[in-house]
Amino acid sequence: METSLGTVFLSEVVGTAFLLLLGCGVVANVALTKSKGAGGGFLLVNFGWGLAVFAGVFVAFRSGAHLNPAVTLGLLSSGADEYAPGVEVTFASTLVYLAAEFVGAFLGAVVAWLAYRDHFDQEPDPEAKLGVFSTGPAIRDYPWNVVTEVIGTFVLVFVVLLFGSTPTGLGPLAVALLVVGIGASLGGPTGYAINPARDLGPRVAHAVLPIRGKGGSDWGYAWVPVVGPVIGGVLAGLAANAYF
Amino acid sequence: METSLGTVFLSEVVGTAFLLLLGCGVVANVALTKSKGAGGGFLLVNFGWGLAVFAGVFVAFRSGAHLNPAVTLGLLSSGADEYAPGVEVTFASTLVYLAAEFVGAFLGAVVAWLAYRDHFDQEPDPEAKLGVFSTGPAIRDYPWNVVTEVIGTFVLVFVVLLFGSTPTGLGPLAVALLVVGIGASLGGPTGYAINPARDLGPRVAHAVLPIRGKGGSDWGYAWVPVVGPVIGGVLAGLAANAYF
Amino acid sequence: METSLGTVFLSEVVGTAFLLLLGCGVVANVALTKSKGAGGGFLLVNFGWGLAVFAGVFVAFRSGAHLNPAVTLGLLSSGADEYAPGVEVTFASTLVYLAAEFVGAFLGAVVAWLAYRDHFDQEPDPEAKLGVFSTGPAIRDYPWNVVTEVIGTFVLVFVVLLFGSTPTGLGPLAVALLVVGIGASLGGPTGYAINPARDLGPRVAHAVLPIRGKGGSDWGYAWVPVVGPVIGGVLAGLAANAYF
Amino acid sequence: METSLGTVFLSEVVGTAFLLLLGCGVVANVALTKSKGAGGGFLLVNFGWGLAVFAGVFVAFRSGAHLNPAVTLGLLSSGADEYAPGVEVTFASTLVYLAAEFVGAFLGAVVAWLAYRDHFDQEPDPEAKLGVFSTGPAIRDYPWNVVTEVIGTFVLVFVVLLFGSTPTGLGPLAVALLVVGIGASLGGPTGYAINPARDLGPRVAHAVLPIRGKGGSDWGYAWVPVVGPVIGGVLAGLAANAYF
Repeated sequence: METSLGTVFLSEVVGTAFLLLLGCGVVANVALTKSKGAGGGFLLVNFGWGLAVFAGVFVAFRSGAHLNPAVTLGLLSSGADEYAPGVEVTFASTLVYLAAEFVGAFLGAVVAWLAYRDHFDQEPDPEAKLGVFSTGPAIRDYPWNVVTEVIGTFVLVFVVLLFGSTPTGLGPLAVALLVVGIGASLGGPTGYAINPARDLGPRVAHAVLPIRGKGGSDWGYAWVPVVGPVIGGVLAGLAANAYF
Repeated sequence: METSLGTVFLSEVVGTAFLLLLGCGVVANVALTKSKGAGGGFLLVNFGWGLAVFAGVFVAFRSGAHLNPAVTLGLLSSGADEYAPGVEVTFASTLVYLAAEFVGAFLGAVVAWLAYRDHFDQEPDPEAKLGVFSTGPAIRDYPWNVVTEVIGTFVLVFVVLLFGSTPTGLGPLAVALLVVGIGASLGGPTGYAINPARDLGPRVAHAVLPIRGKGGSDWGYAWVPVVGPVIGGVLAGLAANAYF
Repeated sequence: METSLGTVFLSEVVGTAFLLLLGCGVVANVALTKSKGAGGGFLLVNFGWGLAVFAGVFVAFRSGAHLNPAVTLGLLSSGADEYAPGVEVTFASTLVYLAAEFVGAFLGAVVAWLAYRDHFDQEPDPEAKLGVFSTGPAIRDYPWNVVTEVIGTFVLVFVVLLFGSTPTGLGPLAVALLVVGIGASLGGPTGYAINPARDLGPRVAHAVLPIRGKGGSDWGYAWVPVVGPVIGGVLAGLAANAYF
Repeated sequence: METSLGTVFLSEVVGTAFLLLLGCGVVANVALTKSKGAGGGFLLVNFGWGLAVFAGVFVAFRSGAHLNPAVTLGLLSSGADEYAPGVEVTFASTLVYLAAEFVGAFLGAVVAWLAYRDHFDQEPDPEAKLGVFSTGPAIRDYPWNVVTEVIGTFVLVFVVLLFGSTPTGLGPLAVALLVVGIGASLGGPTGYAINPARDLGPRVAHAVLPIRGKGGSDWGYAWVPVVGPVIGGVLAGLAANAYF
């Protein structure tokens, strides 16, 4: 049965929006000072993002739940025939996935801002506000920041491409746990974007939304969490192809 | 095979009572100062509520384990034929679900109070006591508090309605993890009632129980965690219907 | 195929020993001041005990993995025919389960002490040492402490008796998560023994082992985590029987 | 279908590299002072290592995902015929597993260092740096440190050998959770190497890599996390053989 590109677009937009709503949400909960989860710690953020993936995968099941251009490009570079059951790999379908992922990420971040509207208004620190939307490095050093993002994304896409080989009943929980693990282990230096849409879509949202007392959107760093994950995803696709 | 409305009532009462016993319990453990889990953090509360759902779903399996009027109303607005295998959607069955959920929530909160009886007696802060029973906003602003509850409930009900589409062996763990995730991500502003019975039933319990040194039951806020989740659940039902 | 009572005995001894080795172990890790997990928090203890159950259930699969006299007595009072596939409910088999559970709990606590030998020697606080072995109340009030243990054990045994009704691929993880949840939610007042063997076996170990600088074994409290769980388990068996 | 020893070697190298990349990564995240997860706590480390196992098992599925000489030697001493479907137990295959596990562990630690490169450079404490690579005792006492490692590894290998007996849909999650539990419960005294390759491979990496401001590699302790796990794994294999 074929899945239309319209269905793919809708599915990836809504799934990625759920991912970013819950993902930006958990950072807001921990980072904005009046929130009930303020100071809740790194593990809370890890679980929040992992469970954001969990929800997003259920929502986007019809399109294979990429939710991430690095996954789409990793599948492409791995030589896969289909992006999901009934969705052929073509130039057009690739563009539909990428566009939907960025649009969904933007929309999810907007809704997260609405859910925490008052907390943004009463938060004095502009960096905390940006941090809800986009990642930033602990130590700013672009080449090494790219390396960290390449490694983290490689782990994500390589293991996701292997999931089909080991039968489990975990379904969407497998990728959720993988993202918890990557965050716990490789999130320290750059905050684990490991997904160009996850970072760029919300950064655009930060730039255009009327957020009270916001600062700049740190466009100087914006290319790192796009380029690193793209390289990591493509390398993982090539490596997975060679590894099987 | 048909399930009688008497069975539905019993099943939802007992299941929702387990949900609230464990849910109010984890807040008591973290919030009451002499408890062993005092100050245990937001993630502990998230897991406690998630696992409360986990237990409640096992207990209420015969009625489909709604445990939440927003789920019942979401199913109704989605145009479903059955509330559970063998339980038709009718005016009578809808009332049975709603009544049972509120009764169960009230009873579960009473048992949680019994389990922490001495800790309530020795707790000096009346707000901590109310917080065990019902939610309250971090920043009191009714319209935006409603928005946050609408968004959180929408995520819950929309994803729950999609669970059937992605086969997993997770069973009741899927909704438990979803509730952990919603709490982590969207619980910051209002404490994620996302369930009218979860909030109102215990609030009534707080009002009528002879809790030593209790304060008011904050009835001014009580409509928010009822109205928000009802709107969110109904919207999610309509959206899920359009999305499939 | 019948399972011999010798196999049942061995299986429950080894399974309960694994449960207590890992369960006492996590408390030692958090409570003994020089340990790497010192001050690790309530959630760490919850997960440690939950995963102790997880390991113990795998180990004792041949005897149905009761690991807990409250489960054995709950099954008895529920009117079950078998304690496990191929193990009839008889007076003799009941005694074998109970004896094995206490023996295993004693042995597991001894091995946990060996694993943390130096940490016991260098720990100045005798109460921390006893706390590794046995539970104690946050507020000493025997009748209410019994109530809390009754409630916690009721939840455990009632839900365990329902596990068969909801198909999942979780296997031993279901009961592990349930124990995490009970600990998070109902562990605050008494430290959730919810298992007479879990408390009494290690208390005997504490009394007889040559632990440097140990204090008394608090025998005045020892009956509470035996009587409470027995009452809770029996009530849960009766209730589950009525509920189905 | 036979699996070639070349495939086994590649599979175990890559799987063990993923294990150590994520495992050393989570310690780096928590231990290096400028990292975003600095001070993230023992439970974060436990989950990080557990999910490192989770990823590694998916990656090494073709060789049975030993990732640990204690598992290989435990299978050998248990009298198993195969190390994985299609891989006979022979002297040659045993050597291939052991060699691949050490090589993979070394490589994974190197990549973890690359991911945290700047954080190593700016970390003043040489002990924190070594701690990212290898374990060390909380109280240095070699005989008892060996005992702790024997006990922890025995639990790991014994339960892993039993996994086949209890059907679940958990797949790689079962061993991941087991490792979380062992870490939470038995990791306090020695940091739970429970795997000779996990400790020795990264220790060699620490010795040879040009890490800025590093101290010694504590070779005096290096035999403990090799000898303890080997003894524990062999004993577990013998015990599992007798227990079935």
